[in-house]
Parts: sequence; C-alpha cells; structure tokens
Amino acid sequence: MNDPNEQPHNLGNLAIDPGRLWADIMETAAFGATAKGGICRLTLSEADRTVRDWFKARAEELGCRVTVDDMGNMFARMEGSRTDIPPIAMGSHLDTQPTGGKFDGVLGVLSALEVLRTLRDAGYETYAPIEVINFTNEEGSRFAPALIASGVFGGMFERSYAVAQKDRGGMTFGEALESIGYRGPERCGDHPLSAYFELHIEQGPILERENCDIGVVIGAQGVRWFDATLIGQDAHTGATPMTMRRNALVGTARMIDAVDRIAKRHPPHAVATVGSIEVKPNSRNVVPGETFFTIDLRHPETPVLEEMEAEIRAAWEATIRELDLTGTLTRIWEQPPVAFDAICLDAIRSAVTRTPFTSRDIVSGAGHDAVYVSRVAPSAMIFAPCKDGISHNESEFSSLEQCGKAAQVLLLSVLEYDRHLAAIRHVASGR
Amino acid sequence: MNDPNEQPHNLGNLAIDPGRLWADIMETAAFGATAKGGICRLTLSEADRTVRDWFKARAEELGCRVTVDDMGNMFARMEGSRTDIPPIAMGSHLDTQPTGGKFDGVLGVLSALEVLRTLRDAGYETYAPIEVINFTNEEGSRFAPALIASGVFGGMFERSYAVAQKDRGGMTFGEALESIGYRGPERCGDHPLSAYFELHIEQGPILERENCDIGVVIGAQGVRWFDATLIGQDAHTGATPMTMRRNALVGTARMIDAVDRIAKRHPPHAVATVGSIEVKPNSRNVVPGETFFTIDLRHPETPVLEEMEAEIRAAWEATIRELDLTGTLTRIWEQPPVAFDAICLDAIRSAVTRTPFTSRDIVSGAGHDAVYVSRVAPSAMIFAPCKDGISHNESEFSSLEQCGKAAQVLLLSVLEYDRHLAAIRHVASGR
Repeated sequence: MNDPNEQPHNLGNLAIDPGRLWADIMETAAFGATAKGGICRLTLSEADRTVRDWFKARAEELGCRVTVDDMGNMFARMEGSRTDIPPIAMGSHLDTQPTGGKFDGVLGVLSALEVLRTLRDAGYETYAPIEVINFTNEEGSRFAPALIASGVFGGMFERSYAVAQKDRGGMTFGEALESIGYRGPERCGDHPLSAYFELHIEQGPILERENCDIGVVIGAQGVRWFDATLIGQDAHTGATPMTMRRNALVGTARMIDAVDRIAKRHPPHAVATVGSIEVKPNSRNVVPGETFFTIDLRHPETPVLEEMEAEIRAAWEATIRELDLTGTLTRIWEQPPVAFDAICLDAIRSAVTRTPFTSRDIVSGAGHDAVYVSRVAPSAMIFAPCKDGISHNESEFSSLEQCGKAAQVLLLSVLEYDRHLAAIRHVASGR
Repeated sequence: MNDPNEQPHNLGNLAIDPGRLWADIMETAAFGATAKGGICRLTLSEADRTVRDWFKARAEELGCRVTVDDMGNMFARMEGSRTDIPPIAMGSHLDTQPTGGKFDGVLGVLSALEVLRTLRDAGYETYAPIEVINFTNEEGSRFAPALIASGVFGGMFERSYAVAQKDRGGMTFGEALESIGYRGPERCGDHPLSAYFELHIEQGPILERENCDIGVVIGAQGVRWFDATLIGQDAHTGATPMTMRRNALVGTARMIDAVDRIAKRHPPHAVATVGSIEVKPNSRNVVPGETFFTIDLRHPETPVLEEMEAEIRAAWEATIRELDLTGTLTRIWEQPPVAFDAICLDAIRSAVTRTPFTSRDIVSGAGHDAVYVSRVAPSAMIFAPCKDGISHNESEFSSLEQCGKAAQVLLLSVLEYDRHLAAIRHVASGR
C-alpha cells in the first residue's frame, strides 16, 4: 500500500470519525475547564501538563514516538514507508486564553490525532512519516510574545530570548518548562518538516455567513500596530468657546473614523481598527486635553499596507493641523504578509474535491503557528467555521459536523501531499 | 453722607486696596494648602472650619454681625443708614475642589470683605445694609450635588434632601454641619436680599485672550447632560471584514465629531463636549463591542438648546442605522438658561465707566451660586480673567492686578446699586 499511484481510490474511502474527535475535544476540555463552559489552560500550567500527558499517552497508544524540544514543543511521529525523509506534520496548540474556548488550537491538535487514528485503523501506511505537533505558548497570555515557541522553531526569535521571558509571578519561560517536565532534549528548530498543515477555527464570521464548510487559507495578513498620543489642552466645558478649544478627543474621533474609512476604501481584505483608547482627564465637564489610542492595520499585500499607512499618516497630519494639537504616531510592531505554500494549497484544494463540502479561499487575519513554521517548511492552513466568528471567549463554538468536515479535509490534504512526495521521489528515482 | 445723590463724585474716589486683598488670598490659601500651591479645602472639613472662623473674625473686626443659616451659609452684615430694607449682598464660596486653586470662589468672598473694609476705612455709610455671603458646598466635591446650599437658598432643593446627602465616608451633610459647628439657627432661604453680586474668576480663556479686565456676566448658559451607550459586537480585528463589523467605537467617534460640529454651527455661545468615554473590551486587537460616553451641551437660549439637541439626536439615529448598532441616548440632567438682572447689570456697567478698565459682556459657562440666588433676588456676576482659562486645578491663577480691578468694580457696582435703591426710595417717599 506504499505506492499511492496504484490506489488513488483509497483516499476517498478513508474517513475520520467525527464523534470520536468530538469526544476527545470534550474530554480534554475538562483540563482547565471554567464554570462558563470554556477553558483556562495557560501555557505550562498544571492544566497544560495534564493535557500534554493525555496527548502523549493517546499518541503512544497509536504506536507513535513522542519527542519534545527545548521549547516544550511536542512531536508525535507515526512512521511511513520511508524513514529517511522529513515528516509531513499537522498540528496547532493546546494552551488557551485565560477565558478561552474549547476549539482555538485544540481542534488542530486533536483533529491531527484523529487523522493518525484513522490511518492506523485503516492500516494505511503513508510514504512519509506523519507527525502531530503541539506548539507551546501560542496564546501569549502567560508569556509574551504569543507564538513564541513556533517563532523559535521558525527562526523568528532567539532561544535565549524565549526562555528568559517572565510571567507576572516572575517565573521565566525556561523555569516553567522545567517545572512541568516539558523541557525536552531536542534543540528547537532542528526538526525538518516536509510540510506543515494546520487546521484551526476561523475566529471570524466569513465561513459561517457564507454557509461554507472549509476555508482554504492562502496566507496571513501583514499586520502593523501603532501607538498614538494626541495632546491638546484641558479646559472647562462650559467656559471654553469652541473656537478656543484644543480638544484631543475630537482629534481622536476623527482618526478613529478615518482609520475605519481608509480600510473600507481597500476592499475586500483590508481591515483597520482602533481598539483601545484612554482619555485624560476623562471627566464629563472637562474638554479632554490628552488621549492615547492604538491602531491595528492588516492586509495580505505589503504595497497596500504601505498605501494605507500613508493615508492614515495624511489623516493624522490634517487632524493635528486643523485642531491645533500635537502628538506622536508610532509604528510599534510589524509582521509582513505571509503567502502559504502553493503545493500545500493544491493538496488542500484536491482534498476538498474528494468531498461534497463547500470551500472558499480565505486570508487569515489572526496570527497562527503556521505563519512562523512557513518560514522553514512548506505550510498551509485549513479553517473550520465557528459560531458568530467569536473566539478567545468561553462561548467559542464549532459544531461536531463542522469540526468533522474540516478534520476530514485535513486527513485528505496530508494524504494528497504524501502522494505528491511519493510521486516526486518516484520521478526522481527514475522508477 | 447718607444721601448718595448729594455726593456722586465720592464713588470714583473710593478705592479698594489690591495688596490687602492679595494678602488675604495668600493668608487663607494656607488653610488646606497643597504641596503644588493649590488648596484642598473640601466643604465642612477642618480646613473649611478654619477659614470660616478666619472670615468670621475679620468681619467682626469690621463691626459686622455674622449669622449662619441651617445650611451653613454665612452672612456678614454691615449696617447702612436704613435698617428696614434687605441688604445688598456680595459673595461666593470658600470651599475648593480636592486639587483646587486659590481663586475659585475665594476671590468673590475676600473681595467682598475688602469692599467692606474700604467702606469702613472711608467712613462711607451705605443706604442699604451690605452683606458678604459665604455659601456652603459650592463645589460638590464632598457632597453632591454642587451648589447645594445656594440651591436651598434659591428654592431649588429641599432642605431635607440637602441635609441627607452623604459623603464617601457615609457622613451626612447635616452631620458634617454639626461636626464643625456651622449649622446655624436661621432657616435657609428666610433671608431676603435687595440684590446679589458675585465676583468670580472666569474659568475660561476669553477675557485673557482679548486682554479684557472685566467680564460683565449677563447670564448663565443652560446646560443639558446626556449619557450614551452604544452596543455593537466584539470581534477579532484581524479576522472580521469591515463589511461584517458592528463597531461601537466608530459610532462613538462619529458622535464625538458630530457633537463638536453641531456646537460650531451655533456660534458664538454654543458649546458641546464629549468629555468621558469608556470602551469595552478596550483591547488593541478586538473590535470594540460596547461604549459609554457623555455629552455636555450648553447655550444661553432654550430654543437653541432644543435645536442642538434635535441635531444631536438626528446624528445619533443616522449613526446607529449606518453602523448597525443599538444603544440609548438619555438626557440625565438639565439646567435652564439664566438671564441676570438688568438693573444689577446696569450697576456693573456704570461702575466700569467710572474706571479705566476694559470690559465685555460674557455668558457664564460654569454654574455659580448666583445662578440659584437669582431665583429669589436680583443678581449678576463680575468675571476676572484667569491664566489660560485654567481652573479646578492647583495652577489656577489670576494676578494681583486682575483681582484688584475686579474687586474695584465690585465695590463700585454695589455702591451704584445702593444709589439706585436710595433713588427709588427717594421717589417713592416723595422726598
């Protein structure tokens, strides 16, 4: 069964078990369960150790070998017919936000486990080894920044930087790894992959609104974050004529509206948001003399990001001039756009055609481990719809059916990619 | 010297002593002095008792009789030639904000004291009795609402309501009056006045900008306060397309700008301000799902207030419709406009003509004791310029020269009004 060219029909007959996947999601949801039906499973906490032990045990039951690197990333490996080529990996993360849901990250890891289980039950031997990865600290809730371990994996962050990060209690990331026994011997990054597929809930409303089963994630938006401060003059609301005001909040309001309008001028992918604002003195009868606010700007193409930033800066200049304000607008962080691997995407699209499911291309607005992994291995993502686009929330929800369809596409995508690897090797070896 | 018609030249020769007034301001500033040069003299505190005792002692040294009503309002009376007519009163308040300045309220009371001192030194006997009033709790910082004692005096609030108001420690206004020994025997409101003149710092920038010595305060703006809540939907900033957003902060921004523009469409007196705002969840990467904000709307004419409120409500309806929001816009408080007494204003204008000082008509944007007193007695106010329009702040400042000019106009205004009373009586008595 190791020459996939001889048995193309087999792929379509393999089927994950949605009920079994759902049972895993519900079982692990108990580790760090909150009263409101969510999960509080901060990275490297006791609850995280428990779910990691559970994951290791389940993988070993399937005959996998589980290894851990020095960032705590876990790799459950099921061998294929060739042991000398890097594995095709699937995965995501098992840590959650403090008031997180049952699906963010979890769905990716447990679906991957279900894929392995399906292959083993069918006696299907892949060409390449297949792995499931559980990345450490995707959320960044306990240790900043988010995606720290996949970031080291992808060469984005230094290991020394990562291990030195501290939580609010002063414990370092390195100490926390030791404390739960998940600082492994393998050097993070010394782990070549043939490809990486990550299934994740969309965390947005598009698939649900369009009644679409599968999102083929073609890339991740570039992100630029800004901090802005506007300074005017505090003044009495009753005693200060409009012509003598230097109202920092009116300036902020014009920027909030401008940021929104600028994004709307670049449809359909551009998004831009003022999410946080502070006003001083924030009193009913005082004209605000100072504000702080944030801007979050995203688009999948760098030239459009440049254009939008220029438009925002033009609006800024006009605002401070018209309202006689001063201030600073500073870009504090930038993440360039990522385009996922074309062959991985072909594998996902081929997989979908073997199902009756509906799909559409989509761009990830959120950051994911796959974004950093894509720096060192061909990668792509699959999105499952989630209710009302709500995530990072205890009410986060994706149905058994929605999870099952996405896991099925994950299975078939990996097998498509495996067939692709086999075909390349077949050609290369002249067989 | 008791027939002013016989000695009109005397008015212009009487002059207050600016240095003596300034010394009083600096001496009393020690009662509740803050490290940054301001005053923290919350109403009915020990510091307030100290300044009240000081005021009583200085007034009695001038031969005044000092009485106190059951709201703690103090009346220092210097008799005139007629004992059977109500006094012409001057005054303001000696309490301050927690981080207040040396001039707000204080200038009005101490200038009035300087007026009495000047009259006594000159041996000038007025026709009517002259009083200096120190109103309790103008600021409202310890007991809400502000202007509570002048409010009872003017029939705006019930005495039972006022005495039951509690500070944060749970002490009632009535108990606090007892605790410093300033709950007097006179029933508040049983104290007829022939007129009331209040000198106050402008608390706005107009006089200073126009290099004008004296503001002739023709009235006080009507005030309407609103609370607004806008509800949309929290969403991920990266994963939620612009077309699917229900962004409560963008709605709020449009209202902040609309409120500003609406006021500017009704020059020169209209002012409108959003001073306070809260955003939920106020996170950089979450589209805000809910906001609360305030609107402060002021104009000296009720029809214009009506028009502005209608325009604000129209902007509100358009905003919630365009952005698919819900919410509430509620008027929580209203103070009708006040026009000060024409004869009192004539007295002030005549007084100014006897000086080389520059003056202009002005409308008070802030609330003052005179607004409530005007409900029961002919009243008007005189404004002195203050630095940068800053008030309710430890850096509040008005110069010795500015204070002195305004106190001189207060003196002459009271004497003009006294002459007016004498003339009326003269005509009425057929002398």
